[in-house]
Amino acid sequence: QGKTQATFSNRGMTLEEDIALTNDYYRHANIAIVHKNPTPIQIVNVDYPKRSAAVIKEAYFKQASTTDFNGVYRGRYIDFEAKETKNKTSFPLSNIHQHQIDHMRACEAHGGICFIIVKFAIHEEVYFLPAAKLFWYWNDQFQGGRKSIPYDHMKVEGELLPFHYQARVDYAAALDKLYF
Amino acid sequence: QGKTQATFSNRGMTLEEDIALTNDYYRHANIAIVHKNPTPIQIVNVDYPKRSAAVIKEAYFKQASTTDFNGVYRGRYIDFEAKETKNKTSFPLSNIHQHQIDHMRACEAHGGICFIIVKFAIHEEVYFLPAAKLFWYWNDQFQGGRKSIPYDHMKVEGELLPFHYQARVDYAAALDKLYF
Ligand SMILES: [Mg+2]
Ligand SMILES: [Mg+2]
Repeated sequence: QGKTQATFSNRGMTLEEDIALTNDYYRHANIAIVHKNPTPIQIVNVDYPKRSAAVIKEAYFKQASTTDFNGVYRGRYIDFEAKETKNKTSFPLSNIHQHQIDHMRACEAHGGICFIIVKFAIHEEVYFLPAAKLFWYWNDQFQGGRKSIPYDHMKVEGELLPFHYQARVDYAAALDKLYF
Repeated sequence: QGKTQATFSNRGMTLEEDIALTNDYYRHANIAIVHKNPTPIQIVNVDYPKRSAAVIKEAYFKQASTTDFNGVYRGRYIDFEAKETKNKTSFPLSNIHQHQIDHMRACEAHGGICFIIVKFAIHEEVYFLPAAKLFWYWNDQFQGGRKSIPYDHMKVEGELLPFHYQARVDYAAALDKLYF
Protein backbone atom coordinates (compact mmCIF):
# COMPACT_ATOMS: atom_id res chain seq x y z
CA GLN A 1 0.00 0.00 0.00
CA GLY A 2 2.99 2.32 -0.32
CA LYS A 3 3.05 3.14 3.37
CA THR A 4 6.14 4.68 4.87
CA GLN A 5 7.53 3.38 8.12
CA ALA A 6 8.55 6.11 10.52
CA THR A 7 8.25 7.10 14.17
CA PHE A 8 5.84 9.25 16.15
CA SER A 9 8.56 11.66 17.18
CA ASN A 10 8.32 15.42 16.99
CA ARG A 11 5.21 15.55 14.92
CA GLY A 12 3.34 17.74 17.33
CA MET A 13 0.11 15.81 16.93
CA THR A 14 -1.94 14.37 19.72
CA LEU A 15 -2.91 10.73 19.73
CA GLU A 16 -6.52 11.73 19.04
CA GLU A 17 -5.47 13.75 16.00
CA ASP A 18 -3.39 10.85 14.71
CA ILE A 19 -6.35 8.51 15.13
CA ALA A 20 -8.68 11.00 13.43
CA LEU A 21 -6.33 11.07 10.42
CA THR A 22 -6.15 7.30 10.47
CA ASN A 23 -9.93 7.10 10.46
CA ASP A 24 -10.09 9.52 7.53
CA TYR A 25 -7.65 7.33 5.65
CA TYR A 26 -9.55 4.14 6.54
CA ARG A 27 -12.78 5.74 5.32
CA HIS A 28 -11.35 6.96 2.02
CA ALA A 29 -9.47 3.71 1.43
CA ASN A 30 -12.66 1.78 2.18
CA ILE A 31 -11.09 -0.09 5.11
CA ALA A 32 -13.40 0.88 7.98
CA ILE A 33 -15.96 3.49 9.03
CA VAL A 34 -14.98 4.90 12.39
CA HIS A 35 -15.80 8.28 13.89
CA LYS A 36 -14.91 10.20 17.02
CA ASN A 37 -17.88 10.70 19.30
CA PRO A 38 -18.25 14.46 19.80
CA THR A 39 -17.75 15.75 23.34
CA PRO A 40 -21.19 16.06 24.91
CA ILE A 41 -22.09 19.61 25.88
CA GLN A 42 -24.92 20.87 28.07
CA ILE A 43 -26.19 23.97 26.33
CA VAL A 44 -27.74 26.59 28.59
CA ASN A 45 -28.01 29.72 26.48
CA VAL A 46 -28.01 30.31 22.72
CA ASP A 47 -28.15 33.58 20.81
CA TYR A 48 -29.86 33.65 17.42
CA PRO A 49 -28.59 36.79 15.72
CA LYS A 50 -30.29 37.90 12.51
CA ARG A 51 -28.53 36.85 9.33
CA SER A 52 -25.80 34.89 11.06
CA ALA A 53 -25.18 31.57 12.77
CA ALA A 54 -26.55 30.73 16.21
CA VAL A 55 -24.01 31.44 18.95
CA ILE A 56 -23.84 29.28 22.06
CA LYS A 57 -23.28 31.76 24.90
CA GLU A 58 -23.29 29.44 27.88
CA ALA A 59 -22.61 25.73 27.93
CA TYR A 60 -20.86 23.13 30.07
CA PHE A 61 -18.89 19.99 29.41
CA LYS A 62 -20.77 16.81 30.28
CA GLN A 63 -19.29 13.42 31.01
CA ALA A 64 -19.41 11.19 27.95
CA SER A 65 -21.48 8.05 28.35
CA THR A 66 -19.38 6.15 25.84
CA THR A 67 -15.76 5.88 24.71
CA ASP A 68 -13.94 8.09 22.20
CA PHE A 69 -14.46 6.20 18.96
CA ASN A 70 -16.80 3.65 17.42
CA GLY A 71 -17.71 2.27 14.05
CA VAL A 72 -17.77 -0.78 11.84
CA TYR A 73 -14.88 -2.90 10.57
CA ARG A 74 -15.25 -6.08 8.52
CA GLY A 75 -18.87 -6.40 9.63
CA ARG A 76 -18.05 -6.05 13.32
CA TYR A 77 -18.91 -3.25 15.71
CA ILE A 78 -15.72 -1.71 17.11
CA ASP A 79 -15.42 0.67 20.03
CA PHE A 80 -12.34 2.11 21.68
CA GLU A 81 -10.84 4.70 23.95
CA ALA A 82 -7.57 6.52 23.23
CA LYS A 83 -5.28 7.62 26.04
CA GLU A 84 -1.92 9.29 26.16
CA THR A 85 0.41 9.10 29.14
CA LYS A 86 3.62 10.92 29.96
CA ASN A 87 4.40 8.23 32.49
CA LYS A 88 7.53 6.28 31.59
CA THR A 89 7.01 3.04 33.47
CA SER A 90 3.27 2.45 33.52
CA PHE A 91 -0.18 3.46 32.31
CA PRO A 92 -2.20 4.61 35.34
CA LEU A 93 -5.69 3.12 35.37
CA SER A 94 -6.99 6.43 36.71
CA ASN A 95 -6.99 7.47 33.03
CA ILE A 96 -9.98 5.19 32.50
CA HIS A 97 -13.40 5.72 34.06
CA GLN A 98 -15.69 3.06 35.49
CA HIS A 99 -18.48 4.05 33.08
CA GLN A 100 -16.12 3.44 30.13
CA ILE A 101 -15.34 -0.02 31.48
CA ASP A 102 -19.07 -0.67 31.88
CA HIS A 103 -19.72 0.55 28.34
CA MET A 104 -16.98 -1.65 26.86
CA ARG A 105 -18.15 -4.67 28.86
CA ALA A 106 -21.69 -4.17 27.56
CA CYS A 107 -20.55 -3.74 23.96
CA GLU A 108 -18.40 -6.88 24.14
CA ALA A 109 -21.30 -8.81 25.67
CA HIS A 110 -23.30 -7.92 22.54
CA GLY A 111 -20.58 -9.07 20.17
CA GLY A 112 -18.66 -5.83 19.68
CA ILE A 113 -14.87 -5.56 19.71
CA CYS A 114 -13.55 -3.14 22.32
CA PHE A 115 -10.04 -2.02 23.11
CA ILE A 116 -7.93 0.89 24.25
CA ILE A 117 -5.13 2.59 22.38
CA VAL A 118 -2.43 3.85 24.71
CA LYS A 119 0.37 6.17 23.73
CA PHE A 120 3.48 6.27 25.88
CA ALA A 121 4.67 9.72 24.88
CA ILE A 122 8.18 9.32 26.32
CA HIS A 123 8.74 6.06 24.46
CA GLU A 124 7.02 7.34 21.33
CA GLU A 125 5.10 4.08 21.20
CA VAL A 126 1.42 3.33 20.76
CA TYR A 127 -0.16 0.10 21.97
CA PHE A 128 -3.44 -1.66 21.24
CA LEU A 129 -4.81 -3.46 24.31
CA PRO A 130 -7.91 -5.67 23.94
CA ALA A 131 -10.70 -4.93 26.40
CA ALA A 132 -10.47 -8.40 27.94
CA LYS A 133 -6.91 -7.65 29.06
CA LEU A 134 -7.85 -4.19 30.26
CA PHE A 135 -10.68 -5.72 32.32
CA TRP A 136 -8.19 -8.05 33.99
CA TYR A 137 -6.03 -5.14 35.18
CA TRP A 138 -9.12 -3.11 36.06
CA ASN A 139 -10.51 -5.85 38.32
CA ASP A 140 -7.15 -6.68 39.81
CA GLN A 141 -6.74 -3.15 41.21
CA PHE A 142 -9.78 -3.75 43.46
CA GLN A 143 -8.29 -7.00 44.73
CA GLY A 144 -5.09 -5.56 46.02
CA GLY A 145 -3.41 -5.39 42.64
CA ARG A 146 -1.55 -2.43 41.17
CA LYS A 147 -3.42 0.65 39.94
CA SER A 148 -1.59 0.82 36.66
CA ILE A 149 -0.51 -1.31 33.74
CA PRO A 150 3.29 -1.54 33.74
CA TYR A 151 4.95 -0.52 30.51
CA ASP A 152 6.74 -3.89 30.46
CA HIS A 153 3.38 -5.66 30.62
CA MET A 154 2.00 -3.51 27.82
CA LYS A 155 4.89 -4.58 25.61
CA VAL A 156 3.86 -8.20 26.15
CA GLU A 157 0.07 -8.01 26.45
CA GLY A 158 -0.54 -5.25 23.90
CA GLU A 159 0.15 -4.91 20.21
CA LEU A 160 2.67 -2.25 19.27
CA LEU A 161 1.02 -0.20 16.52
CA PRO A 162 3.24 0.88 13.66
CA PHE A 163 3.25 4.45 12.41
CA HIS A 164 2.40 4.69 8.73
CA TYR A 165 2.26 7.90 6.78
CA GLN A 166 -1.49 7.68 6.19
CA ALA A 167 -2.55 5.25 8.89
CA ARG A 168 -0.67 6.97 11.67
CA VAL A 169 -2.15 4.69 14.33
CA ASP A 170 -2.71 1.62 12.22
CA TYR A 171 -5.02 -0.39 14.47
CA ALA A 172 -6.73 -2.36 11.67
CA ALA A 173 -3.82 -4.78 11.37
CA ALA A 174 -4.04 -5.51 15.10
CA LEU A 175 -7.77 -6.18 14.70
CA ASP A 176 -7.05 -8.57 11.84
CA LYS A 177 -4.48 -10.41 13.90
CA LEU A 178 -6.53 -10.68 17.09
CA TYR A 179 -10.15 -11.05 15.96
CA PHE A 180 -10.37 -12.35 12.40
CA GLN B 1 -42.11 -8.87 28.87
CA GLY B 2 -45.11 -7.17 30.44
CA LYS B 3 -45.19 -4.35 27.94
CA THR B 4 -48.26 -2.21 27.60
CA GLN B 5 -49.64 -1.44 24.20
CA ALA B 6 -50.63 2.18 23.75
CA THR B 7 -50.33 5.03 21.28
CA PHE B 8 -47.91 7.92 20.81
CA SER B 9 -50.64 10.50 21.37
CA ASN B 10 -50.35 13.47 23.68
CA ARG B 11 -47.22 12.34 25.41
CA GLY B 12 -45.36 15.55 24.67
CA MET B 13 -42.14 13.71 23.91
CA THR B 14 -40.10 14.13 20.79
CA LEU B 15 -39.14 11.14 18.69
CA GLU B 16 -35.52 11.56 19.82
CA GLU B 17 -36.57 11.48 23.47
CA ASP B 18 -38.66 8.37 22.87
CA ILE B 19 -35.71 6.67 21.19
CA ALA B 20 -33.37 7.74 24.00
CA LEU B 21 -35.71 6.08 26.52
CA THR B 22 -35.93 3.01 24.30
CA ASN B 23 -32.14 2.83 24.20
CA ASP B 24 -31.97 3.14 27.99
CA TYR B 25 -34.42 0.29 28.27
CA TYR B 26 -32.53 -1.83 25.72
CA ARG B 27 -29.31 -1.22 27.63
CA HIS B 28 -30.72 -2.12 31.03
CA ALA B 29 -32.62 -5.12 29.67
CA ASN B 30 -29.44 -6.29 27.94
CA ILE B 31 -31.01 -6.13 24.47
CA ALA B 32 -28.70 -3.69 22.66
CA ILE B 33 -26.13 -0.97 23.30
CA VAL B 34 -27.10 2.12 21.34
CA HIS B 35 -26.26 5.75 22.05
CA LYS B 36 -27.13 9.12 20.59
CA ASN B 37 -24.17 10.82 19.00
CA PRO B 38 -23.77 14.18 20.73
CA THR B 39 -24.26 17.27 18.57
CA PRO B 40 -20.81 18.42 17.45
CA ILE B 41 -19.88 21.87 18.70
CA GLN B 42 -17.05 24.14 17.61
CA ILE B 43 -15.77 25.67 20.83
CA VAL B 44 -14.20 29.13 20.47
CA ASN B 45 -13.92 30.46 23.99
CA VAL B 46 -13.94 28.80 27.41
CA ASP B 47 -13.77 30.39 30.85
CA TYR B 48 -12.07 28.51 33.68
CA PRO B 49 -13.35 30.12 36.86
CA LYS B 50 -11.66 29.20 40.13
CA ARG B 51 -13.41 26.52 42.14
CA SER B 52 -16.16 25.91 39.58
CA ALA B 53 -16.78 24.17 36.30
CA ALA B 54 -15.40 25.43 33.00
CA VAL B 55 -17.93 27.59 31.16
CA ILE B 56 -18.10 27.60 27.38
CA LYS B 57 -18.66 31.25 26.48
CA GLU B 58 -18.65 31.08 22.69
CA ALA B 59 -19.34 28.06 20.53
CA TYR B 60 -21.10 27.16 17.29
CA PHE B 61 -23.07 24.21 16.03
CA LYS B 62 -21.21 22.10 13.49
CA GLN B 63 -22.72 19.75 10.96
CA ALA B 64 -22.62 16.17 12.19
CA SER B 65 -20.57 13.79 10.06
CA THR B 66 -22.68 10.81 11.03
CA THR B 67 -26.29 9.96 11.81
CA ASP B 68 -28.11 10.35 15.14
CA PHE B 69 -27.59 6.93 16.71
CA ASN B 70 -25.28 3.96 16.51
CA GLY B 71 -24.38 0.90 18.48
CA VAL B 72 -24.33 -2.87 18.55
CA TYR B 73 -27.23 -5.32 18.39
CA ARG B 74 -26.87 -9.10 18.26
CA GLY B 75 -23.27 -8.74 17.14
CA ARG B 76 -24.07 -6.34 14.31
CA TYR B 77 -23.20 -2.68 13.97
CA ILE B 78 -26.37 -0.60 13.69
CA ASP B 79 -26.67 3.02 12.65
CA PHE B 80 -29.74 5.16 12.15
CA GLU B 81 -31.21 8.59 11.76
CA ALA B 82 -34.47 9.67 13.40
CA LYS B 83 -36.76 12.20 11.73
CA GLU B 84 -40.12 13.63 12.59
CA THR B 85 -42.45 15.18 10.03
CA LYS B 86 -45.66 17.15 10.41
CA ASN B 87 -46.43 16.40 6.79
CA LYS B 88 -49.58 14.30 6.42
CA THR B 89 -49.07 12.70 3.03
CA SER B 90 -45.32 12.24 2.65
CA PHE B 91 -41.88 12.38 4.20
CA PRO B 92 -39.83 15.06 2.38
CA LEU B 93 -36.35 13.82 1.48
CA SER B 94 -35.04 17.31 2.28
CA ASN B 95 -35.04 16.06 5.89
CA ILE B 96 -32.07 13.87 5.02
CA HIS B 97 -28.64 15.20 4.05
CA GLN B 98 -26.36 13.82 1.36
CA HIS B 99 -23.57 13.23 3.88
CA GLN B 100 -25.92 11.07 5.96
CA ILE B 101 -26.72 9.00 2.88
CA ASP B 102 -22.99 8.68 2.17
CA HIS B 103 -22.35 7.64 5.77
CA MET B 104 -25.10 5.01 5.73
CA ARG B 105 -23.92 3.66 2.36
CA ALA B 106 -20.39 3.33 3.71
CA CYS B 107 -21.54 1.61 6.92
CA GLU B 108 -23.70 -0.83 4.96
CA ALA B 109 -20.80 -1.56 2.61
CA HIS B 110 -18.80 -2.63 5.69
CA GLY B 111 -21.53 -4.92 6.97
CA GLY B 112 -23.44 -2.53 9.22
CA ILE B 113 -27.23 -2.27 9.37
CA CYS B 114 -28.53 1.21 8.61
CA PHE B 115 -32.04 2.59 8.61
CA ILE B 116 -34.15 5.64 9.33
CA ILE B 117 -36.93 5.97 11.85
CA VAL B 118 -39.63 8.34 10.66
CA LYS B 119 -42.43 9.69 12.80
CA PHE B 120 -45.53 11.01 11.10
CA ALA B 121 -46.71 13.28 13.89
CA ILE B 122 -50.22 13.77 12.48
CA HIS B 123 -50.80 10.05 12.15
CA GLU B 124 -49.07 9.31 15.45
CA GLU B 125 -47.17 6.56 13.68
CA VAL B 126 -43.49 5.67 13.61
CA TYR B 127 -41.91 3.70 10.76
CA PHE B 128 -38.65 1.83 10.34
CA LEU B 129 -37.29 2.11 6.80
CA PRO B 130 -34.19 0.07 5.83
CA ALA B 131 -31.38 2.08 4.25
CA ALA B 132 -31.62 0.11 0.99
CA LYS B 133 -35.18 1.39 0.50
CA LEU B 134 -34.23 4.91 1.49
CA PHE B 135 -31.41 4.82 -1.07
CA TRP B 136 -33.91 3.87 -3.77
CA TYR B 137 -36.05 6.95 -3.09
CA TRP B 138 -32.97 9.09 -2.63
CA ASN B 139 -31.57 8.14 -6.06
CA ASP B 140 -34.95 8.32 -7.75
CA GLN B 141 -35.34 12.01 -6.88
CA PHE B 142 -32.31 12.80 -9.08
CA GLN B 143 -33.80 10.86 -11.98
CA GLY B 144 -37.01 12.80 -12.23
CA GLY B 145 -38.69 11.03 -9.33
CA ARG B 146 -40.51 12.62 -6.44
CA LYS B 147 -38.63 14.42 -3.68
CA SER B 148 -40.47 12.69 -0.87
CA ILE B 149 -41.56 9.27 0.30
CA PRO B 150 -45.36 9.10 0.17
CA TYR B 151 -47.02 8.09 3.41
CA ASP B 152 -48.81 5.31 1.52
CA HIS B 153 -45.46 3.92 0.38
CA MET B 154 -44.09 4.09 3.90
CA LYS B 155 -46.99 1.96 5.10
CA VAL B 156 -45.97 -0.71 2.59
CA GLU B 157 -42.16 -0.39 2.44
CA GLY B 158 -41.56 0.43 6.11
CA GLU B 159 -42.25 -1.41 9.34
CA LEU B 160 -44.77 0.25 11.65
CA LEU B 161 -43.10 0.35 15.06
CA PRO B 162 -45.33 -0.39 18.03
CA PHE B 163 -45.34 1.81 21.09
CA HIS B 164 -44.48 -0.09 24.25
CA TYR B 165 -44.35 1.42 27.68
CA GLN B 166 -40.59 0.88 28.04
CA ALA B 167 -39.52 0.43 24.44
CA ARG B 168 -41.39 3.46 23.16
CA VAL B 169 -39.92 3.10 19.66
CA ASP B 170 -39.39 -0.63 19.64
CA TYR B 171 -37.08 -1.00 16.64
CA ALA B 172 -35.38 -4.23 17.81
CA ALA B 173 -38.29 -6.36 16.67
CA ALA B 174 -38.07 -4.81 13.20
CA LEU B 175 -34.35 -5.62 13.13
CA ASP B 176 -35.07 -9.23 14.11
CA LYS B 177 -37.65 -9.54 11.37
CA LEU B 178 -35.61 -7.95 8.60
CA TYR B 179 -31.98 -8.90 9.30
CA PHE B 180 -31.75 -12.00 11.49
MG1 LIG C 1 -9.37 9.76 24.95
MG1 LIG D 1 -32.68 13.30 13.84
